[in-house]
Amino acid sequence: MLFTLARQVRFQDIDAAGILFYARAFEYFHDAYAALLDARGIDLPAIIAQKRWGAPLGHAEADFKAPMRYGDRVAVDVLSGELGAKSLKVFYRVRAESDETRVFCTGMTAHVFIDFATFKARAVPDEVRAVFAVKREDEDAG
Amino acid sequence: MLFTLARQVRFQDIDAAGILFYARAFEYFHDAYAALLDARGIDLPAIIAQKRWGAPLGHAEADFKAPMRYGDRVAVDVLSGELGAKSLKVFYRVRAESDETRVFCTGMTAHVFIDFATFKARAVPDEVRAVFAVKREDEDAG
Amino acid sequence: MLFTLARQVRFQDIDAAGILFYARAFEYFHDAYAALLDARGIDLPAIIAQKRWGAPLGHAEADFKAPMRYGDRVAVDVLSGELGAKSLKVFYRVRAESDETRVFCTGMTAHVFIDFATFKARAVPDEVRAVFAVKREDEDAG
Amino acid sequence: MLFTLARQVRFQDIDAAGILFYARAFEYFHDAYAALLDARGIDLPAIIAQKRWGAPLGHAEADFKAPMRYGDRVAVDVLSGELGAKSLKVFYRVRAESDETRVFCTGMTAHVFIDFATFKARAVPDEVRAVFAVKREDEDAG
Repeated sequence: MLFTLARQVRFQDIDAAGILFYARAFEYFHDAYAALLDARGIDLPAIIAQKRWGAPLGHAEADFKAPMRYGDRVAVDVLSGELGAKSLKVFYRVRAESDETRVFCTGMTAHVFIDFATFKARAVPDEVRAVFAVKREDEDAG
Repeated sequence: MLFTLARQVRFQDIDAAGILFYARAFEYFHDAYAALLDARGIDLPAIIAQKRWGAPLGHAEADFKAPMRYGDRVAVDVLSGELGAKSLKVFYRVRAESDETRVFCTGMTAHVFIDFATFKARAVPDEVRAVFAVKREDEDAG
Repeated sequence: MLFTLARQVRFQDIDAAGILFYARAFEYFHDAYAALLDARGIDLPAIIAQKRWGAPLGHAEADFKAPMRYGDRVAVDVLSGELGAKSLKVFYRVRAESDETRVFCTGMTAHVFIDFATFKARAVPDEVRAVFAVKREDEDAG
Repeated sequence: MLFTLARQVRFQDIDAAGILFYARAFEYFHDAYAALLDARGIDLPAIIAQKRWGAPLGHAEADFKAPMRYGDRVAVDVLSGELGAKSLKVFYRVRAESDETRVFCTGMTAHVFIDFATFKARAVPDEVRAVFAVKREDEDAG
């Protein structure tokens, strides 16, 4: 686990069926990703303002296991990353804050790193690589 | 009346209380304002891309008369504008599409025109002035 | 192709990187799905108000091919559906309105049909089945 | 001051002009209002789930003093409330987290309390009254 962002399902995140509108789950993912970078000292707002690099999405997906309802206290876990030369996959899980086994949704976003000026692909920036190049504990086993 | 934008209250516009989340009404206003400019040949996306001018808000307000519910077919009326030297007030009404007297909400946005580069106030652009400098029919009376 | 919903990328759909915020693409998908059902006489708002059935998502995904920018006139195509006993996959494409070959994004949503009262899975409602049980033209070939 | 909610202007809160989309300011207000109630032990999600009471808006307004940009660390202050028999006005300010004098926006929401079943006005619930019936310090003067 790389990071956890706790949040409460908001009044305005609910849809006409009384559950979290599914597209909001992707905002939950993105907020956790942004908070992780911020916590590791990567100042994404400055990087974008200075047009140093961007990381638009090539793919996003989510699996919904159980509906989230207004007021649910959830934890958005950034589980792990998978680094390519110019790309990054980030894996997420949204679960009850108080119970890691009560999973609402899992997901993945695949980012392609680009030079902002040209929108051409570039190598994953070192500072980003450092955040996600974490050996998982279970990889040491055996 | 300057313009009417018909729309249906969407699944995801609803909040946990089962009615339109109030902040979405301001998006309804803005969408009608944008559609009016587009209909009159003002290409706001190009104007912003070329950093010619902007019209950020100085003030916004809304009065909510009746709750909007999922599926309601509403009309967002741009009722009128009020031009200042460097500013513009725009007045809105959201009502049932089929019944002009069934009003859900009214509102106003006050825009200040700026040079994009400096964010300093500037005169209302002529093309915008032309859209809103409409004598109302009732002003001719008497 | 089952349905096409034309729209313009809105002022507020853009993110700090100057392109469509990716989670909004899922709203584009959903709006096209909702418009398709509406066009075929399926009154989803009434169905939900009467708690007859719901169709929450089990899965959603999108592939982003090219960035959408403010003002882009796009068409959201509902390409096809894939019916299961109790589930439905819907396939989408967002492309330039004026050029079917200029694709911004494709995607899929997988819905599970439920009884609203129990949240238990149920058969795909006949009226929904009728919308998506369309033989594609290319299936007739050969 | 009744409450302060710190937040960072998010990637997806920005519009095509590169500043906070104005309607999001109303979400900032609402999030601070919700966080205040939560902090004072008022469980709004439970109250709404049990259909005890609601507090839809009758009016909302905001004055925008300076643009908020991506990454700005802001504090959303719930400044004070003004209680009526069946209504409540809440006053807000959004300012730089590190500098109380650098104000981005101020605003007000006016809520009408209703019985959820009938949507008829009712007295302000005692627990809400307790939160907002705070004598301001400057009222003691003179």
